[in-house]
Amino acid sequence: MENFVAYNPTKLHFGKDVTDTLGKAIEKFGKRVLLVYGGGSIKNNGIYDKIISQLKSIDAGIFKYHGIKPNPVYEDVDVAAKLGRDNNVDVILAVGGGSVIDSAKIISITIPVENSSWDFYKGKTEPKSAIPLISVLTLAATGTEMNPFAVLQNDKTKQKLGWGNKLLFNKHSFLDPRFTFSVPYNQTAYGIVDLIAHCLEAYFGEGEATLSDRFVFSIIKEAIEYGPKLLDNPDNYELRAKIMYAATAALNGLTFNGRKSGDWGVHSIGHELSLLYDIPHGASLSIAYPAWMKYSSNIIPERVIELGKNIFNTDTTEKTISAFESFFKSLDCPVRCPEIGIGEDKKPEIIKNMTANNVSGANLKMTEEDHIKIVELFF
Amino acid sequence: MENFVAYNPTKLHFGKDVTDTLGKAIEKFGKRVLLVYGGGSIKNNGIYDKIISQLKSIDAGIFKYHGIKPNPVYEDVDVAAKLGRDNNVDVILAVGGGSVIDSAKIISITIPVENSSWDFYKGKTEPKSAIPLISVLTLAATGTEMNPFAVLQNDKTKQKLGWGNKLLFNKHSFLDPRFTFSVPYNQTAYGIVDLIAHCLEAYFGEGEATLSDRFVFSIIKEAIEYGPKLLDNPDNYELRAKIMYAATAALNGLTFNGRKSGDWGVHSIGHELSLLYDIPHGASLSIAYPAWMKYSSNIIPERVIELGKNIFNTDTTEKTISAFESFFKSLDCPVRCPEIGIGEDKKPEIIKNMTANNVSGANLKMTEEDHIKIVELFF
Repeated sequence: MENFVAYNPTKLHFGKDVTDTLGKAIEKFGKRVLLVYGGGSIKNNGIYDKIISQLKSIDAGIFKYHGIKPNPVYEDVDVAAKLGRDNNVDVILAVGGGSVIDSAKIISITIPVENSSWDFYKGKTEPKSAIPLISVLTLAATGTEMNPFAVLQNDKTKQKLGWGNKLLFNKHSFLDPRFTFSVPYNQTAYGIVDLIAHCLEAYFGEGEATLSDRFVFSIIKEAIEYGPKLLDNPDNYELRAKIMYAATAALNGLTFNGRKSGDWGVHSIGHELSLLYDIPHGASLSIAYPAWMKYSSNIIPERVIELGKNIFNTDTTEKTISAFESFFKSLDCPVRCPEIGIGEDKKPEIIKNMTANNVSGANLKMTEEDHIKIVELFF
Repeated sequence: MENFVAYNPTKLHFGKDVTDTLGKAIEKFGKRVLLVYGGGSIKNNGIYDKIISQLKSIDAGIFKYHGIKPNPVYEDVDVAAKLGRDNNVDVILAVGGGSVIDSAKIISITIPVENSSWDFYKGKTEPKSAIPLISVLTLAATGTEMNPFAVLQNDKTKQKLGWGNKLLFNKHSFLDPRFTFSVPYNQTAYGIVDLIAHCLEAYFGEGEATLSDRFVFSIIKEAIEYGPKLLDNPDNYELRAKIMYAATAALNGLTFNGRKSGDWGVHSIGHELSLLYDIPHGASLSIAYPAWMKYSSNIIPERVIELGKNIFNTDTTEKTISAFESFFKSLDCPVRCPEIGIGEDKKPEIIKNMTANNVSGANLKMTEEDHIKIVELFF
């Protein structure tokens, strides 16, 4: 077991009507609130009204930034940060999925500085402080509701990067599973893929950590047992709750304890596909994971077999990978590029970008030669 | 799934040489340190010297309270709190196992008030603030290193009570598995029983929480796989680390998410045995759990079967209970009272105390009639 620090100060409020205390939680930090959200779907499902009523209950001054994109870009973060800075906000309230909350995390550290938010990703500047962040989650997927990480994209440089800092922990995180009832089929499915992928990034990371491995198996088995049932019953509270909590547990630190790091090679690959073709993060992962696992089976076959044994009761690398593929397919998620409209002619472009951006895992390193092999398996 | 709040702000430092940064962590809170420890075993295994050297490195003023008992009493807490109050300490450093850290938690909230610490347990007073607590764990068992709970005993009223408050979270918790190398065989074994018991208290609690159930199975399987190996290899770092982390995970909140509460009926029973006959907490649990599970098998047979299925691959209540008994026996832990010197003549006394102290679970309620049935199974 590797040395580790377990630290997660986010206060997670999970369940029915938990946002009834949202106003109270905000008020402790102040009344000038930067409200950040996405494309406006929260206005159609009643969530927006609930949030506004909580803000009104404390006579909050509301400064809105909306229009955060599904694959969020740093320019939006910079504009929102300026809005927050100019209005001297006390607290940020993010209402949405991973892209909104990730953006809000970076807004929270960009407000106190004059730099562009992208500077943090390039290591050009270190954050000094953060405006307190409170989030209300509307999509079970990324785990950003209870961790210090955020992914942003730079369309000019064609980079999509994950980055973490302890200042990025949400102060409070509100998860009402009913807020995910209106999430459509495909986004629900992608969320399930994403949470499984987070578990796998931990599992394939550096360092032996048997209990964390068992937690990985637990979360993946939960997703495999209840994910398909949820897709058949999107308004079932218990099923929404199970998947929502599984997504949180998949990336709140739990599965990483005792490891030096996760691998994150597959996320790194997936980000390239999203960057180039604007495909959903979950779709990029359901394509990239089977391919990567085939490639890595030659290097760490025993880890792939152990995984399959504990999750699917399989006993070979092939059967394990095939079981994951079948599961992703059963959720109607793509496992090959053409299924999502990316043709074979794109191979050189994908490889070129992977190599240009040094796509690699922390544990299993990849070179251009590996990129070529892996991309071949996308088709 | 029940509504829940997941919140644990303790910063856990786990691994080799983690106490090398202890001084730095203490210094952030101040230099006047109340050092709390037990019977002095830390002086024989080098831990004491390491701690003192860290304190000297920051020129700390050290005020010592030692002699905390294995089943800690509130009077010691009151005396230690007076010492801390009179010397205006900035921070408490607890070095030891559950009894020392539990005592230190209550010292931390007793210093700022004039009341006796037992008043908190009787609900006579609410804590207002806490002196920051930093702990160094020397025994893998109770989980107190990363939670807001503490157990104290009152010999006059013959009560041993658990109590929790969010002010009791350790600020920092240092876990070097090598600090447990010198823990003797029986205490190591009792620690394994204790951590399993914590998982079971969660499992038998109120509310369906499938992922938390899976975490319970994970931790118990880890303990069952590596516990006996550790007893054969007490100086094996990896095995000490696995059991130490399993004990933390067993009671840091993880297994309770999605439940209304744990049950805690068996701990309540065990506390009576420890109170009356001063037997180790772990021994009280290895006796009480099989008996309680037999009793509860009539009420919730499907939960007992589900537990056995996932841990031992058994398919009946009897086989499940028998598997737990066999496991406890394999650790040389008692499963019947006479094995630890408590004769049948004590039955009436045990029952009388259980009934007088309203021994019961939060989920499975017990009456005097149940106490009689359960105590019968201790013999």
